[in-house]
Amino acid sequence: MLFRQLFDAESSTYTYLLADERTREALLIDTVREQVERDLNLLKELGLTLHYVLDTHLHADHVTGAGLLRQRTGARAVAGKKGAPCVDLRLGQGDVLELGEVKLEVLETPGHTDDSVSYRVGKRVFTGDALLVRSAGRTDFQNGDAGQLYDSITGVLFELPDDTEVYPGHDYKGHTASTIGEERRFNARAANRDRAAFVQLMGNLNLPPPRKLKEAVPANLACGLTADPRPDAPTT
Amino acid sequence: MLFRQLFDAESSTYTYLLADERTREALLIDTVREQVERDLNLLKELGLTLHYVLDTHLHADHVTGAGLLRQRTGARAVAGKKGAPCVDLRLGQGDVLELGEVKLEVLETPGHTDDSVSYRVGKRVFTGDALLVRSAGRTDFQNGDAGQLYDSITGVLFELPDDTEVYPGHDYKGHTASTIGEERRFNARAANRDRAAFVQLMGNLNLPPPRKLKEAVPANLACGLTADPRPDAPTT
Repeated sequence: MLFRQLFDAESSTYTYLLADERTREALLIDTVREQVERDLNLLKELGLTLHYVLDTHLHADHVTGAGLLRQRTGARAVAGKKGAPCVDLRLGQGDVLELGEVKLEVLETPGHTDDSVSYRVGKRVFTGDALLVRSAGRTDFQNGDAGQLYDSITGVLFELPDDTEVYPGHDYKGHTASTIGEERRFNARAANRDRAAFVQLMGNLNLPPPRKLKEAVPANLACGLTADPRPDAPTT
Repeated sequence: MLFRQLFDAESSTYTYLLADERTREALLIDTVREQVERDLNLLKELGLTLHYVLDTHLHADHVTGAGLLRQRTGARAVAGKKGAPCVDLRLGQGDVLELGEVKLEVLETPGHTDDSVSYRVGKRVFTGDALLVRSAGRTDFQNGDAGQLYDSITGVLFELPDDTEVYPGHDYKGHTASTIGEERRFNARAANRDRAAFVQLMGNLNLPPPRKLKEAVPANLACGLTADPRPDAPTT
């Protein structure tokens, strides 16, 4: 399997490219609208055909490239059962998406948002904002629920084998990946903390609202195809 | 082998951690002084003992963490034959550094600077600033030489197998890795360009000086243990 991790420095978002090396069929996870040209160029150079554009959840901190990529390639937009109304395909717990030899399994991991899913492919799990390296996504908007997130992290993700590689939706300290074993021991929010203590911690984070919340959420409900959220963009 | 890629967002520098999974002996390539605590913490969490801190060259855009890491761990600082005077070990073309099952081979790849080396470990090559994803390091200071860089890229690095994974010293567009095959075909500076055309291109880049040039080079000559280059640091 071809695998590539990509980064958007402005929103600290990781995008993932996975493809079958023989059939050249590809999928992208958690794209960023401003990086669509970069991603299309990489697909072209690698001789890949994009079949699916998946989001782990409805993002509040960046706009997905799913809609634009669908327009440009014919790929299908994919999300969890409670994902954006614009998507073509909704997947639930245990559903498997096959693309050549790439077998992607859906794990429902709500709590950061109510639609959050993780995608497991072999020894890798793409956790979106449910589980970050040594951290976990905030739970104070978009139907977030700290108790539910605790259950997702400890009851779903921490049940995976220790050597499962964790690829997060963001990182702000320069980590690109981790493992389930590491997070079970060292995650600063969820490790060695019971559910009540986790809920209390998450309730006291007092974070400012995400910078793009008001623009990103409506845009992502339409797979990124509404008004451009950049301040200098025409307001069409 | 344990492998981890780390990122410093301020200087867009990639640091690499490699370790033998059984003996827990580790080495770091191209550390960043401001990230030393992060790196030490990761080593501790993973139960690793740091033996070597390698630099691919004398950096002009960030200060190495090698000196501090040596102080804190007893690790040896390593560079190429023409590397900083402060290092403990100088390696030349073909030299091999062994650390448990990790076998790191030195490839001399001068041109970005005269001391630039790449480190090859199995299917991975750590190219510093000699070869970047779709790009190559500038050659207009620190004894840089565009013709020499062309020879290093096309005569040394492009001679590696196509599927060798390229891990660069920096990236500014969100790429984390590439392959030799890709770079041979798509590198925007070196692919499909002869030596004279490459030299001409590199001579006409007209880039501003690196922001930290005046502080970073003297600091790196002492493995990062001179005055702190941060503007708000005490000028001791």
